[in-house]
Amino acid sequence: MTGPESEERIWTAALLVIGDEILSGRTQDKNVAQVATWLNLQGIRLAEVRVVADDMDAIGEAVHQLKARNDYLFTTGGIGPTHDDITVDAIARALGVSVVIHPKARAALEGYYATRGGLTDARLRMARVPDGAELIENAMSGAPGIRLGNIFILAGVPHIAGLMLEALSNQLEGGLPVLSRTIGCWVPESEIADLLRETERAHAGSQIGSYPFFREGRVGANFVVRSTDPLTVDRCIAAIGEGLVLLGYVPVVDGI
Amino acid sequence: MTGPESEERIWTAALLVIGDEILSGRTQDKNVAQVATWLNLQGIRLAEVRVVADDMDAIGEAVHQLKARNDYLFTTGGIGPTHDDITVDAIARALGVSVVIHPKARAALEGYYATRGGLTDARLRMARVPDGAELIENAMSGAPGIRLGNIFILAGVPHIAGLMLEALSNQLEGGLPVLSRTIGCWVPESEIADLLRETERAHAGSQIGSYPFFREGRVGANFVVRSTDPLTVDRCIAAIGEGLVLLGYVPVVDGI
Repeated sequence: MTGPESEERIWTAALLVIGDEILSGRTQDKNVAQVATWLNLQGIRLAEVRVVADDMDAIGEAVHQLKARNDYLFTTGGIGPTHDDITVDAIARALGVSVVIHPKARAALEGYYATRGGLTDARLRMARVPDGAELIENAMSGAPGIRLGNIFILAGVPHIAGLMLEALSNQLEGGLPVLSRTIGCWVPESEIADLLRETERAHAGSQIGSYPFFREGRVGANFVVRSTDPLTVDRCIAAIGEGLVLLGYVPVVDGI
Repeated sequence: MTGPESEERIWTAALLVIGDEILSGRTQDKNVAQVATWLNLQGIRLAEVRVVADDMDAIGEAVHQLKARNDYLFTTGGIGPTHDDITVDAIARALGVSVVIHPKARAALEGYYATRGGLTDARLRMARVPDGAELIENAMSGAPGIRLGNIFILAGVPHIAGLMLEALSNQLEGGLPVLSRTIGCWVPESEIADLLRETERAHAGSQIGSYPFFREGRVGANFVVRSTDPLTVDRCIAAIGEGLVLLGYVPVVDGI
């Protein structure tokens, strides 16, 4: 990050969440927020998310589209030992590579299962990777995540996906992280729509989101300012705060 | 639903979640699970989900792709009064129709804001709809949802989106709802991968998902059987239960 040019390069990632359990409503996804937060720390923006079923074609199509237009692609789900775990096969097929047993993954699983009944065929499925892939460490369950170029294949269980992200921290090239600050107010957002629009317009590189809520019969909203430049964030927060006061409202620093 | 042919027709929906706040990790989405659960009660399957930023092109592309291959398209987010609420404009542009003020929405907002400071320009934004659209009632905040053919434009605030779904209940044509039952066990899923695979194979129309978890240092899993036929669901649950017992495990009805 030495000149304005390198500062302007925005690194993006897509996340593909794979699993019938999300689409059926059975499981509340937690990986989108987790991956988004982690990516931001790496200076990478989560640009889009898709959720697809445990289906070879649906996974393949999404991998093609998302990989083509983002710097990184993350997937969660479908890398366990059971018949509905088809992520590795689907990605390998989409990329036209074969599926192989990774020797290090096999060794890790052999170690993990040595005292847990041994390495069965089903368990060995978790050592299968697209040809050419590296492993992402998983301290918890023996089954590793998988890295294939700019594709990162993570577990679906949020805690394990989180450990895999930890193992990847500070490994990926990114840009400036997006900073954000929040200011809240017991005000209908419609009341200060002009203030928000004008503040965003007046501060290049800022992005202002308005998130209303309804609590105990009252309406309020939080206003989130995002920018890669800390001064811009502070200036926008100050402008919104002053604007609220001028309109007779009481701003709440850091939001409600 | 009078013959086997009509029973086999599967109705699908896609959900498009619109909002920077989901992609930044600030807000944990709750609409995917809510819409999925509601759709299933209507006999409609949630086939895919996308999350995109508050961006005209991203919304437009997703609307085109998702509308083309699903019976219904739902969107959440971006229909409020502030500058970052661009869902109506993006969908109208994507479909090549103009944006108009809906007279009923205007009247509803006039009524709602009569005692709340009057209908300002910003508030009138919430009466803007793609030309030809109908309204979806919103008892809570005066700002209606929007129906345009098979596209349903809902609020982002989960509670309000839920009220809009309620207003749509039993209005949409659907097929047989997917039934599901769960059976759990303190067993590594890799231990019974064959049992699950064979049970699914032996019962046409069944779909079995395996969802492992780690609690207090122990591993377990829940197995979810889905089918439109209640007998098939019961038979699969029985087969998994018997298989677990034969292997020396204790199945837990309705899951752990």
